[in-house]
Amino acid sequence: MNSTGKLPDWTEGTKLDQTDPLAMARDLFFLPEDIIYLDGNSLGAAPEAAIAAVNNTAHNEWAGELIGSWNSAGWFELPSTFGGIIAEIIGAASHEVVACDTTSINIYKALHGALSLRPERSTIVAEGGSFPTDLYMVEGVLASNSTSKALLEGVDGDQIETLIDGETAVVLVNHVDYRSGKVRDIAALAEIAHAHGALIIVDLCHSAGIMPIELNSCNIDLAIGCTYKYLNGGPGSPAFIFCAERHLADIRQPLSGWWGHDTPFAFEQGYRADPGIRKFLCGTQPILSFQAMRAGLEITRQFDIADIRHKSRQLTGLFIKIVEDWCDKYQIGIFSPRDADQRGSQVSLTHEYSYAIVQALIERGVIGDFRAPNIMRFGFAPLYLSYRDVERAASILKEVLDTELWREPRFAKVSTVT
Amino acid sequence: MNSTGKLPDWTEGTKLDQTDPLAMARDLFFLPEDIIYLDGNSLGAAPEAAIAAVNNTAHNEWAGELIGSWNSAGWFELPSTFGGIIAEIIGAASHEVVACDTTSINIYKALHGALSLRPERSTIVAEGGSFPTDLYMVEGVLASNSTSKALLEGVDGDQIETLIDGETAVVLVNHVDYRSGKVRDIAALAEIAHAHGALIIVDLCHSAGIMPIELNSCNIDLAIGCTYKYLNGGPGSPAFIFCAERHLADIRQPLSGWWGHDTPFAFEQGYRADPGIRKFLCGTQPILSFQAMRAGLEITRQFDIADIRHKSRQLTGLFIKIVEDWCDKYQIGIFSPRDADQRGSQVSLTHEYSYAIVQALIERGVIGDFRAPNIMRFGFAPLYLSYRDVERAASILKEVLDTELWREPRFAKVSTVT
Repeated sequence: MNSTGKLPDWTEGTKLDQTDPLAMARDLFFLPEDIIYLDGNSLGAAPEAAIAAVNNTAHNEWAGELIGSWNSAGWFELPSTFGGIIAEIIGAASHEVVACDTTSINIYKALHGALSLRPERSTIVAEGGSFPTDLYMVEGVLASNSTSKALLEGVDGDQIETLIDGETAVVLVNHVDYRSGKVRDIAALAEIAHAHGALIIVDLCHSAGIMPIELNSCNIDLAIGCTYKYLNGGPGSPAFIFCAERHLADIRQPLSGWWGHDTPFAFEQGYRADPGIRKFLCGTQPILSFQAMRAGLEITRQFDIADIRHKSRQLTGLFIKIVEDWCDKYQIGIFSPRDADQRGSQVSLTHEYSYAIVQALIERGVIGDFRAPNIMRFGFAPLYLSYRDVERAASILKEVLDTELWREPRFAKVSTVT
Repeated sequence: MNSTGKLPDWTEGTKLDQTDPLAMARDLFFLPEDIIYLDGNSLGAAPEAAIAAVNNTAHNEWAGELIGSWNSAGWFELPSTFGGIIAEIIGAASHEVVACDTTSINIYKALHGALSLRPERSTIVAEGGSFPTDLYMVEGVLASNSTSKALLEGVDGDQIETLIDGETAVVLVNHVDYRSGKVRDIAALAEIAHAHGALIIVDLCHSAGIMPIELNSCNIDLAIGCTYKYLNGGPGSPAFIFCAERHLADIRQPLSGWWGHDTPFAFEQGYRADPGIRKFLCGTQPILSFQAMRAGLEITRQFDIADIRHKSRQLTGLFIKIVEDWCDKYQIGIFSPRDADQRGSQVSLTHEYSYAIVQALIERGVIGDFRAPNIMRFGFAPLYLSYRDVERAASILKEVLDTELWREPRFAKVSTVT
């Protein structure tokens, strides 16, 4: 710890750590010394087994077995294999999920898929405060659907519920907001959407791996998400897409590449979609990034998601409890919900100089990130963070604010990539 | 070599190997002993440096530097960085190429892009014998363009040139045919397409890395291709897309994800496309597969492409020369062009029992592949094959045919994935 953020020997965090059923999970990850990593909501830490797996895939599967690994190492089946694991994590059946491509591309497939099931309807409803790529993909879909338009929460009305009507083809929402960490009640929203004959797509990027998700119990129609945040799949690891079984037979999507064909190795001239979830596949998948993803998925599956959620609430709650004692003094705002039921696994704070504060924290070994216009985001990954880490991070934040360290010129805005 | 395919000590291959300027390139690759790998046209061999790179990325960049690697390891710039290297290999400018996504997805972007430049035209012209995914993506594009239709060489007319007229928006062709290895004259076809006001997209999957390609000299409008064949990028390594500078300002494509935004980290609500080639990016890219790809690209760049092409012609020519002495005897057909100018870096043979013959060859250590209905494909990667390998492979093929080894029941068709 390259900081003087000293804590008493015995703290609330120490006590919580002693009874933490997930404490042993930390040993499954490689974590650099001297940092407290609060950016698992952006890029998860590396499982030790993932490093070994990617080396094995490069050396033994690619170099050693070459083309034979498509069969012998199960490469061609990886989208389904990992789809099955992800299905367990998000409350779906294994034949309803495939891992593939990127979140953005899967949003495009899901939107087109929903429109193919509601061809007579003209409106896509989404969130004005959505992670932007969701909205950009809506624009991309609209560009080739001249009869469709988008209505945005926060732009066309205050509440998404009021934008849904008999013209709505599909509602696209984030399960957990990327800036505030606020959880949306997707079961309630699905009921409203369905009452109007619309479908619902849920973006699980900021919820998968940190809370119980029951897509089928909630009657969700389609879902997409990434695996490189709380699922610890590695940088840019493949995304996933879920389609409820009831839609699989009829749904169509235009990224109709050969991996989505019913018989890809028959090399037929015409496209015949796979009758199941593999119709959402398109081209040849990046195998090294796939194999690196396996360990993170397996780790999440091996622990009890109720324990993960409990710890997530406690970690974020402890951070808020410490910060709120002094946030007024430093003109810090708490942007995330104080009610743990409403909160994902991150705490977002606001300050006029959030960018500089985040940079100063990084120099002191506390890794969070900045989101425009004035938000510091701190993600708390239950699998590899301790309660003591939370206390230490809060203590260093207070120190940075006390000393006004962030005012030093080297922390001024220098980069747009965080 | 687990075969009795013995050769005399001194052969034509021995002589050619002694003067091969690419002989030292073989040492840059990890190649298993006891096999002759003739499937580099499907999955290229692993550069030793690629294995080291992927281990470094997993261990040092991901595990060690975590989120910081997006800046410090240049992850976010990799599509442009590698696009620049690929540009050198395909006769383009560095600002005209990005590496990203899959070939299928890039075909979709290229087709939509071409249609955005020719909105008043209604026809896509392609090859009935194309690698199927190209045609499947045409179908996907047509599904959301009710005014468009496709005309296919071999279905709607014998020669692609006769299908091009004033209604043609874009012509999509493979530079080298995946089954026969036949090279298409893309410069001549571009001239015909342009004379009719149409655009041309070239699929470089089977030509990139084995012959000089001059996209800009040939006035090609758009091109796409993979990096996992002769460019040795690794299994499912990211694909690339080229767009000629003259189209960059006006072209639009609907996979408008955040990586293609002009200011991706401003998190704006509305999409504003990057003004340059990065408008073809969409979502977050698979970094481990990217970093594994670097070595293969660098190796191809470091050798003289004229030497690579010369050796490619000689390797395939030597194989044909040996086989044609006895192909009639075994009812083997030579499906690839005998004229080296017309031939990529593969030799395809036909036989009624091609599948079983390929399986028998694999058991004897000669790795080729099968393509329906009756084609054996043998790819000759100039960077890691010797002329002596060619002679030995031909000798083992003759042995398999002489002994009718392929008639043994274990070589009957058992799998569709080869």
